[in-house]
Amino acid sequence: MDWIRGLLGWGIATTITGVDGKGLLLLNRKAPIPQYASAKEMEIAIKKIREKTGPLVDIISTDPEDLHAHGYSEWSTVNTSSLPVAVAYPRSTEQVSTIARVCHEYRVPIIPYSGGSSLEGNFSAPFGGISVDFAHMDQIVQFNREDMDIVVQPSIGWQDLNDQLASMGSGLFFPVDPGPTAKIGGMIGTNCSGTNAVKYGTMKDWVINLTVVLADGTIIKTRRRPRKSSAGYNLNGLFVGSEGTLGLVTEATLKLAVVPEALSVAVVTFPTIRDAASAAAEVMQAGVPVAAMEVMDEVQMRVVNLGGATAPRVWRELPTLFFKFSGTRASVAEDIGSVQGIARRNGGGRFEFARDGREQKLLWSARKESLWSMLALRKGSTDVAVPFSRLADIIEVSKKEMDDLGLFASILGHIGDGNFHESILYDPNNGEREKVEECVKKMVRRALDMEGTCTGEHSIGWGKKESLLWEVGPETLAVMRAIKAALDPKWIL
Amino acid sequence: MDWIRGLLGWGIATTITGVDGKGLLLLNRKAPIPQYASAKEMEIAIKKIREKTGPLVDIISTDPEDLHAHGYSEWSTVNTSSLPVAVAYPRSTEQVSTIARVCHEYRVPIIPYSGGSSLEGNFSAPFGGISVDFAHMDQIVQFNREDMDIVVQPSIGWQDLNDQLASMGSGLFFPVDPGPTAKIGGMIGTNCSGTNAVKYGTMKDWVINLTVVLADGTIIKTRRRPRKSSAGYNLNGLFVGSEGTLGLVTEATLKLAVVPEALSVAVVTFPTIRDAASAAAEVMQAGVPVAAMEVMDEVQMRVVNLGGATAPRVWRELPTLFFKFSGTRASVAEDIGSVQGIARRNGGGRFEFARDGREQKLLWSARKESLWSMLALRKGSTDVAVPFSRLADIIEVSKKEMDDLGLFASILGHIGDGNFHESILYDPNNGEREKVEECVKKMVRRALDMEGTCTGEHSIGWGKKESLLWEVGPETLAVMRAIKAALDPKWIL
Repeated sequence: MDWIRGLLGWGIATTITGVDGKGLLLLNRKAPIPQYASAKEMEIAIKKIREKTGPLVDIISTDPEDLHAHGYSEWSTVNTSSLPVAVAYPRSTEQVSTIARVCHEYRVPIIPYSGGSSLEGNFSAPFGGISVDFAHMDQIVQFNREDMDIVVQPSIGWQDLNDQLASMGSGLFFPVDPGPTAKIGGMIGTNCSGTNAVKYGTMKDWVINLTVVLADGTIIKTRRRPRKSSAGYNLNGLFVGSEGTLGLVTEATLKLAVVPEALSVAVVTFPTIRDAASAAAEVMQAGVPVAAMEVMDEVQMRVVNLGGATAPRVWRELPTLFFKFSGTRASVAEDIGSVQGIARRNGGGRFEFARDGREQKLLWSARKESLWSMLALRKGSTDVAVPFSRLADIIEVSKKEMDDLGLFASILGHIGDGNFHESILYDPNNGEREKVEECVKKMVRRALDMEGTCTGEHSIGWGKKESLLWEVGPETLAVMRAIKAALDPKWIL
Repeated sequence: MDWIRGLLGWGIATTITGVDGKGLLLLNRKAPIPQYASAKEMEIAIKKIREKTGPLVDIISTDPEDLHAHGYSEWSTVNTSSLPVAVAYPRSTEQVSTIARVCHEYRVPIIPYSGGSSLEGNFSAPFGGISVDFAHMDQIVQFNREDMDIVVQPSIGWQDLNDQLASMGSGLFFPVDPGPTAKIGGMIGTNCSGTNAVKYGTMKDWVINLTVVLADGTIIKTRRRPRKSSAGYNLNGLFVGSEGTLGLVTEATLKLAVVPEALSVAVVTFPTIRDAASAAAEVMQAGVPVAAMEVMDEVQMRVVNLGGATAPRVWRELPTLFFKFSGTRASVAEDIGSVQGIARRNGGGRFEFARDGREQKLLWSARKESLWSMLALRKGSTDVAVPFSRLADIIEVSKKEMDDLGLFASILGHIGDGNFHESILYDPNNGEREKVEECVKKMVRRALDMEGTCTGEHSIGWGKKESLLWEVGPETLAVMRAIKAALDPKWIL
């Protein structure tokens, strides 16, 4: 993937030229570029892949619209100018292996493409190459109901997976719930989380094993199927979150969770965002096992109302915590009681409960829809994460700074694990972009000063590669680089 | 570590000579051995380390008893014949870095030593070298109560850590609970779990970041301090479980959990081990959030009675499930009701509850003490893990096979995550060792046939390195090898 190629490969990590007054690393951007295939060689490679995977179906497309669709994203803050030279649509692990083998031979970059909903340019193609679109690999391969696990292909969406599990009456579901269009492959690439992460953790906690095609076409399986193993290095943990830079995931065995007996959704408003953040921290510190806890500020609530996604219901435009409770009937009632007490002590208002399944969906959708509501306007979005105790501080300061700059910004987040997003609406044509970029940089720096991270879950992509260096330091980056070099010596992934 | 050195470095992975009729890989055991320091060079290295870390304290010991203590374990099934040439007792990350830098220069193997309670020869020293004993690095470095995390040195024991957290009245605890003598460093090395794993997961779920000294002495920090991050590769996941083969952990930031309001411990007996295993699988499939669920067979229960660890209380010598319930008072009562129903349907008897904190400890200690009870006799122990649905099958077959061979064997396990241990008592002097080895091999093969793993939590060490190859296959092993080579090119760790 590009950030690794750019940052670890031959670029930034090796060419730090100094540190400026504010601790920002100065980088030599004229570092050498690795030797990739010429246009002619890429053509030969494409022909070879066609030969080896044909003749029944042509898995390669060079249609200009297709290339454009795979090299540019409406949603992304960063777009590079060059496009992939071809898009491959493999149908099996073996075809992926063939593609990798040929690309490895001719040094053709490979860019894996899954849901395409990434926000940091994770799938852009700055050096041409072949985009591998897993669209046709979207099936359930094997469902082991008694073992509570399932084997799937990378392009199945998590919502589709859950719909299929529900229609089978399995009583099981896959609990990691990022944006509605996300697919399993991309979720593995970014080690994504979602609103359920407080209770169920992130993607890496739900992957039992992966089938991975390495840069040279070798097919490996990271582990076998039991839930627990300490055999050898934890390759699962390494491939999950590696953004496709170490190998192409073609199959995943996922753990499934039992659908809880009872589910309750409620919202509660607070006078200030700091009160909301304090209440959230207290819920975590008290160990109340909420299923999900999200924060949205008054701006975000207004955007939801304006967007009309939950119409006719209209929300109070105040800082709001969203809670999901799940478990048995009795434990849900008890958890609600505990959280109500904490909210009250922090200035919270009355709990508004969803009265039935339809209202639960509606209410939760206010949170879920928020990103999509924002997208109807023009905006930028970024995310950081800090330890619990600093949450109220960073949210307050970052929001104030945005307001001072006259930017229309708002805060929302998976507050249960210290992760929040800042969304900024701006006009890209009147110079606001620079202001926004400055603000985002400051927020990232602030999160790092608080021992935080520059990305809780969106991951690095092309947009935050300088922040990564700033966050982990050159030595740690060198380790990542060594691993990358070991598994993909030609840096084609 | 040795298994990696032996298996990945230049040995087994590169010299597979064929596959026998039963699918066992035939290996060329005469593979070349890497160039390590001569005795003379090791002496120079020791002198250099003394120079650089002295003169106030001599951190190096060459006392023969010390060397023996660090190269041989009473408890291990495998012991190699050579001893380390010195034992280093560093006091800081910087001293560990100095040791590694010098050892790297002179190609002196380094063997990290933490609790010394490993069962698979994880700390043996087949090529001499320096044993690094972290005994003096056993402190709490920083406690962040509001963030619910703590920074510790590797030699602090998990029980000691919890005692300190309790005496501070923090309301927090570290939930990973392996054998009572285990230390955090070793627990990280093996990605260990314990009886609480059903509810709280394994070591990797509780490590926020690590300070690691690499083979060449470079000091890195895997991540910053928030609970969630997707910045760069998941190095935590890679170092946790790598058995010290990729770097030396000198500091760890760990998440802490909230001490639950209520705790209840109960045991229930079953007519057969299959009934017990079926009940356990049903508890998991129903999603009852038990805090712990362990199985012990009738033999194990007799050993506990014989050992007298829980005297005067005496246990029924039948296959037994041990349960721990935790949460609020109401949720504990509810969970107990659910599990009682499942036990009854599977032929279980009456629940025996601990009536107070003392009895809880006593009752749970019957399970915790079992290994130590066995050690008073002469025994071997091994562990495998399989998917839930195969648990009853493999336990029944493996136990019958042991009985048929006239071996005194017994089963116990963390049944909640499909992991069980088989303990075999034998006389090493009358040829029983071969029988035992044959049986263990068969059990491992059986687990792998059921898509299981050769080690749920003891990890590979020196004892199971052939099983690892058999389990993950040569391609996956080659990936592990490439990572190892990238981070420790001279294979000194």
